[in-house]
Amino acid sequence: MNDSDRTGTQLSATLPMPMPMPMPNLRGSFPGPFPTSPYADDIERHTADWLQAFPLISSPGKLKALCNITGQGMARTFPTSDRDSLFLCADLLLWLTAFDDTYGESTGARDPARLIRRISECVHLLADHDEPPGETSVFGTALRHLLTRFGERATPNQYLRLTAHLRDSLFGILWEAHHLDKPDHVTLADYLAMRPHTAFVRTVMATAEITLGYELAEPQRSSAAVREMEAAVADLAGWINDLASYAKETSHDGQSPLSLPTLLMRQHACDLEEAFRLASRMCEERADAAVLRITALTANGNGPLADHARAIKSIASSYVWHIQHSRYRDHE
Amino acid sequence: MNDSDRTGTQLSATLPMPMPMPMPNLRGSFPGPFPTSPYADDIERHTADWLQAFPLISSPGKLKALCNITGQGMARTFPTSDRDSLFLCADLLLWLTAFDDTYGESTGARDPARLIRRISECVHLLADHDEPPGETSVFGTALRHLLTRFGERATPNQYLRLTAHLRDSLFGILWEAHHLDKPDHVTLADYLAMRPHTAFVRTVMATAEITLGYELAEPQRSSAAVREMEAAVADLAGWINDLASYAKETSHDGQSPLSLPTLLMRQHACDLEEAFRLASRMCEERADAAVLRITALTANGNGPLADHARAIKSIASSYVWHIQHSRYRDHE
Repeated sequence: MNDSDRTGTQLSATLPMPMPMPMPNLRGSFPGPFPTSPYADDIERHTADWLQAFPLISSPGKLKALCNITGQGMARTFPTSDRDSLFLCADLLLWLTAFDDTYGESTGARDPARLIRRISECVHLLADHDEPPGETSVFGTALRHLLTRFGERATPNQYLRLTAHLRDSLFGILWEAHHLDKPDHVTLADYLAMRPHTAFVRTVMATAEITLGYELAEPQRSSAAVREMEAAVADLAGWINDLASYAKETSHDGQSPLSLPTLLMRQHACDLEEAFRLASRMCEERADAAVLRITALTANGNGPLADHARAIKSIASSYVWHIQHSRYRDHE
Repeated sequence: MNDSDRTGTQLSATLPMPMPMPMPNLRGSFPGPFPTSPYADDIERHTADWLQAFPLISSPGKLKALCNITGQGMARTFPTSDRDSLFLCADLLLWLTAFDDTYGESTGARDPARLIRRISECVHLLADHDEPPGETSVFGTALRHLLTRFGERATPNQYLRLTAHLRDSLFGILWEAHHLDKPDHVTLADYLAMRPHTAFVRTVMATAEITLGYELAEPQRSSAAVREMEAAVADLAGWINDLASYAKETSHDGQSPLSLPTLLMRQHACDLEEAFRLASRMCEERADAAVLRITALTANGNGPLADHARAIKSIASSYVWHIQHSRYRDHE
């Protein structure tokens, strides 16, 4: 079996590892090419304009790359969505990514208290209280703009769910900054529990109902079928990202990054190749579990459950698509 | 004007300051004695039993004091509530306080990453996802028990609001732990924005609808009258606590605590007495603003708006009552 067979995406060929690492075969579960919105290029242009109004990123090169991956990625996340909703979701994901790049990761690890202060502004805006917001930043101004737009199209419940998950994404950034340089302090169980938050995938899921205009009834939302489908995709999204970005995250100083393979090496006292093999199998199992649920939920045709399952499927597809992007191949 | 006149509660007489500090006069706005539930002692006994099932506190002395202030305090927070709802709200407040005492404050300041890991378990439970929860603690088990009980009696919307505010309270604990030893890094504006979260008052407000069985319509919730009333009480709750606990928080090592008077001294280049005078005036203004809104909203008799205003009034009263409790007078 060659690399292309194993990965279905030829990802391993791009990793500067000592040898091609085993990668998950998702060709059966999430085969590309993935449906894409006709507005893909519009989204990319729009996000660049939005970043003119809210200058979250100073480097023109980074800005261009981020608008590209966000625009093209969002076009695969919600391929059937209307244009304005795609713009809004893209702006939100761009905001989260730029926030993480600017204040999180190694910057946040160096000065966690500063990261906390920046997040406190966001928490304040998410809670939407009347107390004055404290110090304001361009990220705060941009978040306010996003929340206003979501508030205009979301039901109160949808808005509450979105803002709850946004809080969790911000907490994920915080958790990661506190552990980036000390993977030894993180158990595998803790890592797996936090990974969906650091991948922002639950926040993306929370935008689906608002974007596509359906709403699950509470019994549907809390059904085993929906919960298991969401959990499988939440795991998959973070884990495949870990495999795709491992080389990039290692290349700075050679230290093992806070990433699934690192923790699997420790847990199983194995080498990196075996850890990649284990992680690939975990990804494939979660992908299969997700597809099983998606297939069952879409079998009955229409209605919010089928809409939701299709949305979760395209969200999963967008994460599978993401890991092929140059963001994870360039070793800056 | 003697101390009793100034404070209405003789608080200043209990502060071990070089001189009696100016304290807010709340006798006109929130005069005691405050209505008390007939279940006050039942709540106190119940919380002690609950702490047998979920041993969050190891010191018998601390346990007794905390059950006392929580039981008697909750009896004043919702004096008209049924017994089981009071038990539930008391357990929640006890949980938050015990979590803060155990992992937050100086313990959290010493090892913020450990605090983050403990909070990550809670974030996971609050998000209610299917991924395995990572490491579990007795605080996690107790939180799960609380959330199940709230889930049984709250509407989806009420539950989402409660869990959102609980996240903010946990973030408040985190924010405080990162700044406890460095008030210099905190601007007055940031402090004022975060103080409602560190005082847990927004979480207490979020329990009111569930406890008392009413639900605001969205236009009511977002009306200026409701928002301003809530913001005034949110400020008041934290600020009077700061004044009441200043001596206790200073007494350990003489360093100025992260507290409103400390930040006012810096902001106005004044001494502690003047800072207390300024803070007292701020408290009185917020108390008056709250009363104005409460009076207007209860003038029309019944309905959710009046129910809510009465709930906010008794919540404010409970914070005013709290600062007289020995928790803030004992200098452990």
